[in-house]
Amino acid sequence: MVKIAMDLLKEGKIDEKTVLRRMEAEKLDELLHPVFDPSAAKTAKVVAKGLPASPGAATGHIVFFADDAEEWAKRNKKVILVRLETSPEDLRGMTVAQGILTARGGMTSHAAVVARGIGKCCVSGAGDILVDYRAKTVEMSGKVYKEGDYISLNGSTGEVYEGLVPTVMPDMSGDFAAVMKLADKYTKMDVYTNADSPRDARVARKFGAHGIGLCRTEHMFFEGDRIKAMREMIIAPDEPSRRIALAKLLPLQRGDFEGIFEAMDGYEVTIRLLDPPLHEFVPHQLATQKELAEQVGMTLDEVKQICSNLEEFNPMLGHRGCRLGNTYPEITEMQARAIIEAALNVQERGVTVHPKIMVPLVGVLKEIELQAEIINRTAQQVFAERGKTVAYKIGTMIEVPRAALVADQIAKVADFFSFGTNDLTQMTFGYSRDDAPKFLGFYKKLGIIKTDPFAVLDREGVGQLVEMGTLKGRQTKPDLNVGICGEHGGEPSSVKFCARLGMNYVSCSPYRVPIARVAAAQAAVEG
Amino acid sequence: MVKIAMDLLKEGKIDEKTVLRRMEAEKLDELLHPVFDPSAAKTAKVVAKGLPASPGAATGHIVFFADDAEEWAKRNKKVILVRLETSPEDLRGMTVAQGILTARGGMTSHAAVVARGIGKCCVSGAGDILVDYRAKTVEMSGKVYKEGDYISLNGSTGEVYEGLVPTVMPDMSGDFAAVMKLADKYTKMDVYTNADSPRDARVARKFGAHGIGLCRTEHMFFEGDRIKAMREMIIAPDEPSRRIALAKLLPLQRGDFEGIFEAMDGYEVTIRLLDPPLHEFVPHQLATQKELAEQVGMTLDEVKQICSNLEEFNPMLGHRGCRLGNTYPEITEMQARAIIEAALNVQERGVTVHPKIMVPLVGVLKEIELQAEIINRTAQQVFAERGKTVAYKIGTMIEVPRAALVADQIAKVADFFSFGTNDLTQMTFGYSRDDAPKFLGFYKKLGIIKTDPFAVLDREGVGQLVEMGTLKGRQTKPDLNVGICGEHGGEPSSVKFCARLGMNYVSCSPYRVPIARVAAAQAAVEG
Repeated sequence: MVKIAMDLLKEGKIDEKTVLRRMEAEKLDELLHPVFDPSAAKTAKVVAKGLPASPGAATGHIVFFADDAEEWAKRNKKVILVRLETSPEDLRGMTVAQGILTARGGMTSHAAVVARGIGKCCVSGAGDILVDYRAKTVEMSGKVYKEGDYISLNGSTGEVYEGLVPTVMPDMSGDFAAVMKLADKYTKMDVYTNADSPRDARVARKFGAHGIGLCRTEHMFFEGDRIKAMREMIIAPDEPSRRIALAKLLPLQRGDFEGIFEAMDGYEVTIRLLDPPLHEFVPHQLATQKELAEQVGMTLDEVKQICSNLEEFNPMLGHRGCRLGNTYPEITEMQARAIIEAALNVQERGVTVHPKIMVPLVGVLKEIELQAEIINRTAQQVFAERGKTVAYKIGTMIEVPRAALVADQIAKVADFFSFGTNDLTQMTFGYSRDDAPKFLGFYKKLGIIKTDPFAVLDREGVGQLVEMGTLKGRQTKPDLNVGICGEHGGEPSSVKFCARLGMNYVSCSPYRVPIARVAAAQAAVEG
Repeated sequence: MVKIAMDLLKEGKIDEKTVLRRMEAEKLDELLHPVFDPSAAKTAKVVAKGLPASPGAATGHIVFFADDAEEWAKRNKKVILVRLETSPEDLRGMTVAQGILTARGGMTSHAAVVARGIGKCCVSGAGDILVDYRAKTVEMSGKVYKEGDYISLNGSTGEVYEGLVPTVMPDMSGDFAAVMKLADKYTKMDVYTNADSPRDARVARKFGAHGIGLCRTEHMFFEGDRIKAMREMIIAPDEPSRRIALAKLLPLQRGDFEGIFEAMDGYEVTIRLLDPPLHEFVPHQLATQKELAEQVGMTLDEVKQICSNLEEFNPMLGHRGCRLGNTYPEITEMQARAIIEAALNVQERGVTVHPKIMVPLVGVLKEIELQAEIINRTAQQVFAERGKTVAYKIGTMIEVPRAALVADQIAKVADFFSFGTNDLTQMTFGYSRDDAPKFLGFYKKLGIIKTDPFAVLDREGVGQLVEMGTLKGRQTKPDLNVGICGEHGGEPSSVKFCARLGMNYVSCSPYRVPIARVAAAQAAVEG
């Protein structure tokens, strides 16, 4: 497709705009990931089939636990992480693996979403495979595979192959690069990326991202020993003890931000303050609870009690986002300090830094007012301590329906809006992303919904709130910077919708950046 | 207040409209529930304090389990149900008790909401009491009370007294009745009630309700042996087995509806189809799971597996409401048949019946289209079988934000809208009613919210959706019947908001009906 269009352009048979119009943006995805060597794939044996949850081809040794994945990776072995399903605790294992295979979960399960986010191949919901964690085996098509055996995944088709199938890397120069150049020439909207690490940031820059639209800070708390300080903070009985634990986290966060700022030298970096409910961080297994009790000098029962008190009936609608930052202002303080100190540090090293601090889950004006107060106060303190300043912006996610409804008020305080269309879709439809797969498949068959609203932005419903939020926000602040982050930022028709609304940017997974660039340009040339 | 105003009216010092304007509607609540004999309350000993979750005074023997409450009630003993917290399984116990005391949970906990709904006195979240289920004791102020000991609750203050404190019944004739008559003279909006049983319906009629705006059908499935048939239906492996279990439920549901139709002779009765997620009905204890396995001829492991598969991460946003009726159309079919057959049966007995069938949790036009198809087809079948017909209406709850946004579409099919402002508030704010108490108290202290949005309708945010839904719905269908059900339907300022929007009715708990009548009249006279 790319080659044909560029050839016609060179021959003068079509013009540049026509080249862009002819691109099927979604198909570009195939050009951005490794694929199986066609001759090898032909003879490979398919042993299971799941959902094509994240594209690309991957091959490696089977491992069943995140820790094992890291162990094997340290010895320079390529691994495929095989799980019943994944949880945030598996993130490190997913990051070092070539691909992920799960027995349960849909296209929007944890495994699928994270894999797409980090550009890993993933096959999810392979319901016929039998995973035995204790024996470290997986049975597929009647045969038992053990840890260390080779398998290969095709994340674009959902097929699982026995043994090692060689992969080839895509070529992103030549015609592909030329099309991207055309896209940038015609687009009126920028493309940012969602990236939580310098590595992701670098990949996204390579793909043409002009900034980070969403840097989640929570992933940083799971790495290595950090989770211990995080847990210590969470179960601390009072503010002073919380501050002691937060002080341990501060230098780690600051270091993370420095790395990301450096990788994005010259570009905006939007950092979202802590978002998930705290119970996602506490241990749920007896052994780890015991360890935590010893670490902080509490009894096991006390630790158990705190962990169980943190549990929620509907965590999605619970004590999270800026509700944490407002009930525990010292968390926001630590994060604001880490961001500002990191910005000053890299600035001293000659890096051009544009930090944007993003407050999650705002629904009421006063929520962001209070958070902005904390951030500004902390920034002034750091500036005074260091005798230097750096420009920064404060904005918010618009992800709770109420935020879109009162966007005119919120824009009084916010310098920018980023529509968190994942959560906004959950709440506008009343669909839990984790639970909806149980009926969404059926809903598609019945014709109730035409496309998965978590994949393609629902123009009729959620889109009304996005439009309303944008208009009301700019009513108060005409130059309000508006973008979206979340899965929709990399889906062509949703990107076009955002472009037509006059958004400043969309932000998407690094591997979706080229797709978004083309879609944004198409919206501009299609008018 | 009532007496003074009526005296002034009789003396010709104020006019009728001024009488209404002077009523503090909320204060009428005190006139509708039993209160403690003032002299006895003075000498009674307060042993604990919780939240004033549901008004009134109650006195009785302590019991700790719903089953025990029923046992004692059968022997004509008055009981107070004492629990850590309540769940839907406790409903029968709550219904027969005089009052409910819980150690955990806020003003919107299960115990509080259900108690207000059924007009029971309730003190919730009495954090200092120590409940020991195994020993059947509760420790309060250092003293241990056992099953059978007397305690007394003041649901209007949250106080718990030792021993039996005598109560007196309110007087609802005289001036009170005169004020109510004035309210009906001036109001432009009707007041309906939320009632799930003939008993509730009769209480509400006595208080002046002109119809039922919300009859929940799920409570009916917990009573006595019915839960067994319900569970059999849920764990049935296929449609034919589901139909066998549903056939057992049909006559029971039909009987319930007949009772309610009779109690509401001449008035509209709005019946909501099954709403909660199915896992609320399955057993979570080993003993009951074993029992169920034997009942249906499955292994314990199979039953356990099914129950655990039904669990959800965010049940509030899960497989519930019309999502059930659309994935299991045979459930809607059974309920529609029960409603239509019951209506024909009571009509034959000379009762004037106006059934309204309400589809819950609609967010997409096609959802109600499919449900209406099933209901209409079933009604036609029953009419053909019986050679008789009855008029009925089909409508929907507007409780998912998306429903308000696409109300113009939904009104093509719906004869009426009922705003389910409890769920609409949950999703518009992103607040889980069960989890939000953890931070809402703090949010009030910080001034982020001024009033609990589950108690007082949030005009700025949720109110926009209510207004939008009403306007868009009537754009399509100018004579669309519009009301609200849920807690807000009995809260004076919210009732006035609905009246000003031009709603046809509000629906509230039986004991809130007089308050809503006065508030609705005030909106009319205040203009």
